[in-house]
Amino acid sequence: MPTQFDPPSGTRDFLAADVLKREWAFGVLRSVFASYGFEPLQTPAFERIDVLLGKYGEEADKLVFKILRRGEHEASGEADLALRYDMTVPLARVAAAYGSQLPTPYKRYAMGSVWRADRPGKGRFREFVQCDIDTLGSTSLRADAEVLCAHHDAMVSLGVTDFTILLNCRHVLVGLLEVFDVPDHLGEGVLISLDKLDKLTPIGVIDELIGRGLPEQTAMELVVTMTAPDATDRIRTILKKSEVGITGLDEVDHLLTTVTAHVPAERIAFTPRMVRGLSYYTGPIWELDAAGVPGSIGSGGRYDGLIAQLGGPDVAATGSSIGIERVLMLLPDDVGGQRRGKLDVAVPVLSEDLTAQSCTLASMARAAGLRASVYLGTSGKLGKQLKWASDSGARLCLIYGNSEREAGTVTVRDMVNAEQTSVPFDGVAEYLADHASALRG
Amino acid sequence: MPTQFDPPSGTRDFLAADVLKREWAFGVLRSVFASYGFEPLQTPAFERIDVLLGKYGEEADKLVFKILRRGEHEASGEADLALRYDMTVPLARVAAAYGSQLPTPYKRYAMGSVWRADRPGKGRFREFVQCDIDTLGSTSLRADAEVLCAHHDAMVSLGVTDFTILLNCRHVLVGLLEVFDVPDHLGEGVLISLDKLDKLTPIGVIDELIGRGLPEQTAMELVVTMTAPDATDRIRTILKKSEVGITGLDEVDHLLTTVTAHVPAERIAFTPRMVRGLSYYTGPIWELDAAGVPGSIGSGGRYDGLIAQLGGPDVAATGSSIGIERVLMLLPDDVGGQRRGKLDVAVPVLSEDLTAQSCTLASMARAAGLRASVYLGTSGKLGKQLKWASDSGARLCLIYGNSEREAGTVTVRDMVNAEQTSVPFDGVAEYLADHASALRG
Repeated sequence: MPTQFDPPSGTRDFLAADVLKREWAFGVLRSVFASYGFEPLQTPAFERIDVLLGKYGEEADKLVFKILRRGEHEASGEADLALRYDMTVPLARVAAAYGSQLPTPYKRYAMGSVWRADRPGKGRFREFVQCDIDTLGSTSLRADAEVLCAHHDAMVSLGVTDFTILLNCRHVLVGLLEVFDVPDHLGEGVLISLDKLDKLTPIGVIDELIGRGLPEQTAMELVVTMTAPDATDRIRTILKKSEVGITGLDEVDHLLTTVTAHVPAERIAFTPRMVRGLSYYTGPIWELDAAGVPGSIGSGGRYDGLIAQLGGPDVAATGSSIGIERVLMLLPDDVGGQRRGKLDVAVPVLSEDLTAQSCTLASMARAAGLRASVYLGTSGKLGKQLKWASDSGARLCLIYGNSEREAGTVTVRDMVNAEQTSVPFDGVAEYLADHASALRG
Repeated sequence: MPTQFDPPSGTRDFLAADVLKREWAFGVLRSVFASYGFEPLQTPAFERIDVLLGKYGEEADKLVFKILRRGEHEASGEADLALRYDMTVPLARVAAAYGSQLPTPYKRYAMGSVWRADRPGKGRFREFVQCDIDTLGSTSLRADAEVLCAHHDAMVSLGVTDFTILLNCRHVLVGLLEVFDVPDHLGEGVLISLDKLDKLTPIGVIDELIGRGLPEQTAMELVVTMTAPDATDRIRTILKKSEVGITGLDEVDHLLTTVTAHVPAERIAFTPRMVRGLSYYTGPIWELDAAGVPGSIGSGGRYDGLIAQLGGPDVAATGSSIGIERVLMLLPDDVGGQRRGKLDVAVPVLSEDLTAQSCTLASMARAAGLRASVYLGTSGKLGKQLKWASDSGARLCLIYGNSEREAGTVTVRDMVNAEQTSVPFDGVAEYLADHASALRG
């Protein structure tokens, strides 16, 4: 493509096949979320800049797209608006704005573009869709379980079944830090290093922990425990020494029991070394890993203090974010199995004075629930028009020329086997209705 | 709402009911467009600034939201990107970029937000959805007819039936200017003034025409002709004196004949005084007026030179733009007739150790295609939980307490008449499947 016609760096044009695949997936997600009683929320693409900045730290602020003031203020070079960076800051604003109008708990999903001025790369975009489900105002683990089940169902409904939910709890991690006598001020740093156990070697992580100021012996014991083949059992035993650790284990087990009838046991596993880098989580945390995909295809957890920190009310919160762009890459192009974007019925126009009848035939096909179009080109030749019909994917051609006019019929041509049937003009609507489901198939 | 939590000026938050109504309407439109073989196109929210600016004149450029350069360039106060202002400039870019990959003709629809820094007002927003259907690459009037029929069907499918399509043709207008000897350089201005005949008095328009330099006699004759009760007949007669006028009439009549089987005659009228202010139209033009709505609810026409002017290839083009925001205001809130955003089934949780079973019951309801949720609050009291069920709109409650556990049953409570039925736990899935369609109804 000539460079000057590229979409802006890190953004994409979606032609028909892509849009239809994406819309199909979004439709599936909407219907799963609705089945759980989550309701949709849509906020503007941009927010006032003070709403967005300073919420996730300086690095994130640099990635925010800022919008110039307008009119006489444009020359100032100042920005007063910014494109949304995620769906959580707008959620916090909405929770503050509409508090009493919203149901309690407020179970909402948000699906829409967010913009980040990241360096574009393979699978990393500057405009991409985020898809979040969150429940505000419930402290119950049932809310976590529900979000998790909805996320699980979303994946399965999209046709993604080969994935694992890694389940953990912040209290398990805090308990571990306590049992291993990790000083408070090192806690977050130690967790960040432990999170790298799936990327670095154990020795590499030990080195990093020592670098952070953790005693060598502690660093080694911690890593040995976390990476042992029987790590989960060992950690279950160790955690009994810590009150918060016991709470964490209880939460994990309660969650596992709650989802047991819904999520197959082989698809969910207590994974003590799964940390989720983000320090705002306060309870259960989870991550979805798909076979053969580096990184996660979704994640979530409880984040009770965050909505207040982001400027919203002080409410309990739990949620999950579906890595829909990554999931879309996993799906085959023809997912959903429809003949999407193809015509069912093509209607040639063999002379200008037969236009109205051809248009009527196309209308009849549409009334039968079929996708139909008349020929819009300039050729009067049937051969050329049949070529167009075939290129459009049409299964049927409705041919109405002078001989058909005289006979009061329409020639119905099967585009697959080139067989032709003569149908009375007045019987075409019925004929199409009878054949509609086979044609759409 | 506290001011600091408002969405930015001219933008809106859409809570559940609004989103569901909008999504319903967008879904209807997508399905109508698909039935005509139009395919979707999605382009990024922003374009490189040089793609957007200078396309619609200085006034429009002022309304474009411009995005600051990022990183070290942010301080320059310069913009390198801008939010899209309409769907036509991106279409021109895409036509230039993907030319040979696109079908010929390229029939596409685009539905998405555009942003304009207009002064916000009643029904005028800074972020709003535009919904366009366009056909590139067909010079045939059938393409105009098809777009027009698709627009017509879109309205009817949304439930808007009380509207009129005002049909005209640029060649009719050019013929009129010719017949009335309007000097070439005054042509566009005269048309702009005539376009105001539905807002100003005839005398007001005559004054404006004279102000533009049109001789008084010409101005009066022109306005008298256009506003006469038999204006259409008079103009049909007059136009026979002009070659281009005859062409225009032929186009109008051919279009009327083509759509005749599809668009009821009372819904479309040749309206010579309908001008459409935009000078880029080159053939048929139309406008949809709904009863009781000031301004139009949609419009379109042929614009053969525009795509090239906007930086795209030199292709014939025709299209229609559905004023979907205005149409949405016409629709009742419960349009589509579904119990949107309501729960079908509510599942109380009467003690923590019965959580898993309650979650299982909710899963069963979802498997039957129902919207279901377990109670997420902290109260253990059935009364409070029934209140929640009722507030959520649930038609059915599935109650599973200790007595039900002992009996191996579930108490199914009809929330409408408070009748309760005891159903064996193992029979609940079947019970729900049997009642699902009535519950969703």
